[in-house]
Amino acid sequence: MRKNIYLTLILVMPVFIHVSKGQNQDSLVIRKMYTEALTNPVGYKNLDYLCTRIGGRLCGTAKAKEAVQYVKKLLEGMKLDTVYLQPVMVKHWERGNKETARIISKQKGKKDLHVCALGTSIGTGDTGIKADVVEVHSFNDLKTIGRSGIEGKIVFFNRAADESRINTFESYGGAVDQRARGAMQAARYKALAVIVRSATTAHDNFPHTGVQHYADTVKPIPAMCVSTNDADLLSLWLKEDPSLKLSMMMNCRDLPEEPSSNVIGEIRGSEHPEEVIVFGGHLDSWDIGEGAHDDGTGVVQTIDILRIYKALGIKPKHTLRVVAFMDEEMAQRGAAAYAEMVKKKVEKHIGAIEADRGGATPWGFSIDASDQQINKIKSWKPFFAPYNLWFIEKGGSGVDIRDLKSQGTPLIGLVTDPQRYFDYHHCANDTYDKVNPRELELGAAGMAELVYLIDTYGL
Amino acid sequence: MRKNIYLTLILVMPVFIHVSKGQNQDSLVIRKMYTEALTNPVGYKNLDYLCTRIGGRLCGTAKAKEAVQYVKKLLEGMKLDTVYLQPVMVKHWERGNKETARIISKQKGKKDLHVCALGTSIGTGDTGIKADVVEVHSFNDLKTIGRSGIEGKIVFFNRAADESRINTFESYGGAVDQRARGAMQAARYKALAVIVRSATTAHDNFPHTGVQHYADTVKPIPAMCVSTNDADLLSLWLKEDPSLKLSMMMNCRDLPEEPSSNVIGEIRGSEHPEEVIVFGGHLDSWDIGEGAHDDGTGVVQTIDILRIYKALGIKPKHTLRVVAFMDEEMAQRGAAAYAEMVKKKVEKHIGAIEADRGGATPWGFSIDASDQQINKIKSWKPFFAPYNLWFIEKGGSGVDIRDLKSQGTPLIGLVTDPQRYFDYHHCANDTYDKVNPRELELGAAGMAELVYLIDTYGL
Repeated sequence: MRKNIYLTLILVMPVFIHVSKGQNQDSLVIRKMYTEALTNPVGYKNLDYLCTRIGGRLCGTAKAKEAVQYVKKLLEGMKLDTVYLQPVMVKHWERGNKETARIISKQKGKKDLHVCALGTSIGTGDTGIKADVVEVHSFNDLKTIGRSGIEGKIVFFNRAADESRINTFESYGGAVDQRARGAMQAARYKALAVIVRSATTAHDNFPHTGVQHYADTVKPIPAMCVSTNDADLLSLWLKEDPSLKLSMMMNCRDLPEEPSSNVIGEIRGSEHPEEVIVFGGHLDSWDIGEGAHDDGTGVVQTIDILRIYKALGIKPKHTLRVVAFMDEEMAQRGAAAYAEMVKKKVEKHIGAIEADRGGATPWGFSIDASDQQINKIKSWKPFFAPYNLWFIEKGGSGVDIRDLKSQGTPLIGLVTDPQRYFDYHHCANDTYDKVNPRELELGAAGMAELVYLIDTYGL
Repeated sequence: MRKNIYLTLILVMPVFIHVSKGQNQDSLVIRKMYTEALTNPVGYKNLDYLCTRIGGRLCGTAKAKEAVQYVKKLLEGMKLDTVYLQPVMVKHWERGNKETARIISKQKGKKDLHVCALGTSIGTGDTGIKADVVEVHSFNDLKTIGRSGIEGKIVFFNRAADESRINTFESYGGAVDQRARGAMQAARYKALAVIVRSATTAHDNFPHTGVQHYADTVKPIPAMCVSTNDADLLSLWLKEDPSLKLSMMMNCRDLPEEPSSNVIGEIRGSEHPEEVIVFGGHLDSWDIGEGAHDDGTGVVQTIDILRIYKALGIKPKHTLRVVAFMDEEMAQRGAAAYAEMVKKKVEKHIGAIEADRGGATPWGFSIDASDQQINKIKSWKPFFAPYNLWFIEKGGSGVDIRDLKSQGTPLIGLVTDPQRYFDYHHCANDTYDKVNPRELELGAAGMAELVYLIDTYGL
């Protein structure tokens, strides 16, 4: 027996020591990644440029073109192995220079509201729209009220985001149907236009825009959003004076599609250059803010993964690729084009990561992959724990990478503290100064760590 | 055998069902607490008053007195069982109306710096101080340079908070000795005064004040802090012109001690009124900001625990007591007086919770108690998980409750996201608008949950 035990020890120990050394080595590399991110705020400076020098960059606009050129130049300056643009045609919707709404009440007086057009909305025409208002809280309300109560009126969607939810993405998810499909639904009942309560947990004066969709089968009607404070006010005034009128004016419009690009940069893999770990955020943003948390942060954080690799001189085994996706907000053309390219080239992607939930403190990763792959990432929890990345769960990833799902790629979304995100989302409040450099840098380091572990141990 | 199994099932099942029902009931109560906190922003409104109507409330000042009266009135309006003031004498240090520093360099020119006096510092006298500057990074540097290199000069402590630390409290902890004891140490080498780099991870123009201590054995010298940006600048200019002069002026001073109070409110326990669960934050703050994150948030959050109990009609078994502690920042007189009272009355405290790490998203609890007690709190993790309270570890609690340690009370500190805290800490940037209502409310609910579990299951 004794002999056998010794034999077992001899056989097992070298392996144990090897693994332990490897893991210690990993821990040291990972620690260096965080130090590099936290002490060298290049990502934060890049965000500054993207937000305060360029600003809001709606796809199809000159600002979006400027952003493409800026990121291309930025990547070219990083001595990567490859930098290129992937062409993609995008919609070009123009907000115009008029978007107003005013309550006119004989009893209560007049009140201008904080409003803005929803993305893809048609304008009101030069004379605007002036009509009665019917407040609803769901598409079912439309059905209950019926055409007789809606025709010729402005429908006011006023179901609030549920503040009692712990995760604000659920609050948003429970309200955003009004923005996305309100006009399409109200048009079926011959409404003249819709005004939609902003899909946010914040109580503020910012209208929070976002894309909305028309149906081919119904006539498009103008769609605008109103700040939560003003939605409360409009609702209150309507209770006191149901006969009040709302006048609306918008000169937003569609223009011909424009050529644009995803921006791509790579470090070639030393052992498996044909296998790719891809990561990115989306470069386009809404026009009324600076596109800071949505999604300038995701863009500069994922670029910073490559910067960290270069700064520390780490040579990845697999090809590491950053993509600044174009047109997440409007029609996800960049995402579709990227997935199409991967399919055509039969490129093997061993992992895809998106950062598009705001640049607040990272919590961990939401993973859309097999149970085996999820468990593998969970087995790395000891590596994540020192950096407070505690959330590693099955769940959605990101809009720009989800088309890779059909090719079997494990998809991962960076999960960040969600409490403040919808204070900024799609509104003029989404500005550079709302991003904390440390929170941003921790997110970049957290993804660099995950990329390192995938590159080292596979998925 | 069969019979035995049935018998076992019969004996075991009712207990199982009972526990399960009780836990379900707990889950429902806890869920209601969060809903109450998130949908009824009373705490946030109270913070607004405390910060924007009253403002900075340094102990001994009229503002601190106003804050005491405000909180007393607030508690009296909540229909608690008891509201009272606990008298305590506090220091009264006055900042004065002059605190300036200017670099005078023949080569580089003149530059006014963003500075302010450190708490308890003496003034410079009306003529100010103008002298050479010697930059150091540690107390050891003082020793190395020696009296000959320091006497008659201004010592500039410029060791930066270590940004590579993941937890900013560690960054702060590694730098704050310069602020707390810099003047005392430099005085031993006959320095004329000290100017100390702000103990913060932020790069900004705010001087971050804080208390500093003189030693009885050395002559007090003036102590001021300088913003991190200006510390970098001063260091740079010193390299280029070691002969530059710094002129300093401050007219801060000590005044006679003042009477003040802790403010206390209670809901009497229905089963064990003699046993207390105490929770609180500190009502005093530095004078140059609004005392929002430090520690208005802790005060309004812990008051909100009682409000949540009242709103939901929950009757605690043990007495729940909130304390708004006076004088955490200067000499912890309120904390000492409270512990003294508990000792004198031989009051049994079954738990003490402090919220004094800023009002950002709550992460969990740091517990200074026996392993058994810590494990009991850890066993409640399933109750905390839906609310993202993932951090439950042994560690420090809070300055205002630590004196209860000697009486065997389990001490608990609310742990919040630390990344932004030192952007606000002890500076003019610590204002109401930097607090997010949801983050604040989640902290209140998290502590209400913990109080509920301690009250229900003991510790």
